[in-house]
Amino acid sequence: MKIDGTHYRSIWREADGAVKIIDQRWLPHELRIVTLCSRKDFADAIRDMWVRGAPLIGATAAYGVAVQMADDPSDASLSETYEVLHATRPTAINLRWALDEMTRLLNPLAPTDRAEAAFRRAAEICDEDVEINRRIGVNGLQLIREIAERKGGGRVNVLTHCNAGWLATVDWGTATSPIYHAVEAGIDIHVFVDETRPRNQGAQLTAWELLNHGVSHDLIVDNAGGHLMQHGEVDLCIVGTDRTTARGDVCNKIGTYLKALAAHDNGVPFYVALPSPTIDWTVHDGVREIPIEERGQAEVTHVQGRMPDGTVGQVLISPEKTPARNPAFDVTPARLVSGLITERGVAQANAAGLAAMFPEIAKAAG
Amino acid sequence: MKIDGTHYRSIWREADGAVKIIDQRWLPHELRIVTLCSRKDFADAIRDMWVRGAPLIGATAAYGVAVQMADDPSDASLSETYEVLHATRPTAINLRWALDEMTRLLNPLAPTDRAEAAFRRAAEICDEDVEINRRIGVNGLQLIREIAERKGGGRVNVLTHCNAGWLATVDWGTATSPIYHAVEAGIDIHVFVDETRPRNQGAQLTAWELLNHGVSHDLIVDNAGGHLMQHGEVDLCIVGTDRTTARGDVCNKIGTYLKALAAHDNGVPFYVALPSPTIDWTVHDGVREIPIEERGQAEVTHVQGRMPDGTVGQVLISPEKTPARNPAFDVTPARLVSGLITERGVAQANAAGLAAMFPEIAKAAG
Repeated sequence: MKIDGTHYRSIWREADGAVKIIDQRWLPHELRIVTLCSRKDFADAIRDMWVRGAPLIGATAAYGVAVQMADDPSDASLSETYEVLHATRPTAINLRWALDEMTRLLNPLAPTDRAEAAFRRAAEICDEDVEINRRIGVNGLQLIREIAERKGGGRVNVLTHCNAGWLATVDWGTATSPIYHAVEAGIDIHVFVDETRPRNQGAQLTAWELLNHGVSHDLIVDNAGGHLMQHGEVDLCIVGTDRTTARGDVCNKIGTYLKALAAHDNGVPFYVALPSPTIDWTVHDGVREIPIEERGQAEVTHVQGRMPDGTVGQVLISPEKTPARNPAFDVTPARLVSGLITERGVAQANAAGLAAMFPEIAKAAG
Repeated sequence: MKIDGTHYRSIWREADGAVKIIDQRWLPHELRIVTLCSRKDFADAIRDMWVRGAPLIGATAAYGVAVQMADDPSDASLSETYEVLHATRPTAINLRWALDEMTRLLNPLAPTDRAEAAFRRAAEICDEDVEINRRIGVNGLQLIREIAERKGGGRVNVLTHCNAGWLATVDWGTATSPIYHAVEAGIDIHVFVDETRPRNQGAQLTAWELLNHGVSHDLIVDNAGGHLMQHGEVDLCIVGTDRTTARGDVCNKIGTYLKALAAHDNGVPFYVALPSPTIDWTVHDGVREIPIEERGQAEVTHVQGRMPDGTVGQVLISPEKTPARNPAFDVTPARLVSGLITERGVAQANAAGLAAMFPEIAKAAG
């Protein structure tokens, strides 16, 4: 999407062959674009979260393989690259998928043919991600359009949680794609952005995205959404998901469940935007079956931001010896989800709805 | 309650007559005890939030009048003190109540008798607050004891929001009083402390209280409570309230409503602790009738804490130009409240329950 009127993706290859990314660690305070020149650069970028978001991690890994193939296209180099990049974030499913995909493609090729094929496939992976998210946006746009029509063209207020934005994908984002499409369609839209403690991806990334693309928005604390919904200030919630079960339970950033409860209590539609590969057809009861990662205490006891001297640093918000618990995700039961916005259309959040939308996958999994 | 084993109140008079408070602006990073020597000191302390919490503000104002009467007990001084102190936080109901109370008492007295009477009454106001909160604790203790017995002596996990602790009152606190009583009764108890953005009173004050009194606790982000409740990690929620309606709707710090929804969805009892003077018998439908204060955007866009150099400062967490909305309170409908823990007992959260517990007040108001 746009930064100061210029269109960007979160990863791209320049005409001269250089692969560039936005180093997201400095957002929203500074826009740093860096060139990833070596396998080590790509490994650092994934491990140290210069890039984050499942689709973007996958795309970055694909380009990492391509850059390494240009350096050394040998079999040993290829298999070592798989290991090196996979180790950077071993639980990231898209990372493994992209590495498997590249290996499957490159293994049978002569080493001399590998670099070109790898760059071509990496670009395709990026384009495929953009296309999936574009379709999610087109499908979600219908929901926003209906609300806009019901309100006689009045402003449509959307609440979102965390960053399921273009910075987490290659472009468009998932939850933000319907919003960007609504902006392009000339719909008057406003976004309430949950700051999303502990890591504040809403405040740091989603707010930055919307500001730079010129979308009307307000930052709110995670506590505020329920009150806004009670008072009719939210027409629609759209969030992303890390993992969706076969019956439509949604595992997403911690706090999503609380917003879904508030939406349900106030009759506000609560939609989840997702590319179909994030559906885990082997899991049904999300609350019982999905293990939730507990992250470090420092994310809770400290908050990162721009300090008065202009540098980015962290402040301690609690007593030094106070311990913290830090579950990173929660599960929103399907009963609280109005629908799942996928690249094929909006599915009902239940086993039948998902199976009807993706019959060939559901059948294979079932 | 205790700090490093020594018992403190949040305001007290030393044997030499000096009135002291804890300057809460520096918590949790530094314990600063200051002597308030003049009317100006008291006005600064209330206005600039060295002290906060309705009961403590009232007690501080009462002592402010007394200290001024020792300086100048004239009629002009008395009425001027009312104006000066009232202007510090004009919407604080307890502030006005305490000033009215002191004026009513002192006006008829000869100026020479005023200082002594004022100090005596200020001390009584403090003791009355401590006694009300002690009773809330005794009544709330029964709820905790029942859970402990049901769990066969297993640990009782309580979730609380914001700071309805002893730092907001003269001692015991409201929501924390049952917790401190449970500790004294030898019950194994653990507290999940919501950080309570935007001002982080949970992280800054409640965590500090519990740590210093030696109560087991974990700080959590406001997003995490729903997940913990889904997984049976919370046995009971206890929160405070700024204002309770005649039918039991509860206006409290923003985000309380979301925790009440999660408690309801998971069958976790959700109790509200309150001294009966915070019941507003003239208001019924809290969501519709109670206007919610919107505070400054900087509370949302900035977070205060201890910086790496050891000083207390603020960091900016969002893009400079991103606007924010900051509703300070929300209303939890009575249907989500399991009961109201008052100084008289635990009332049902409905008009009949409150009227039965406080028949003489309900009748006068009705």
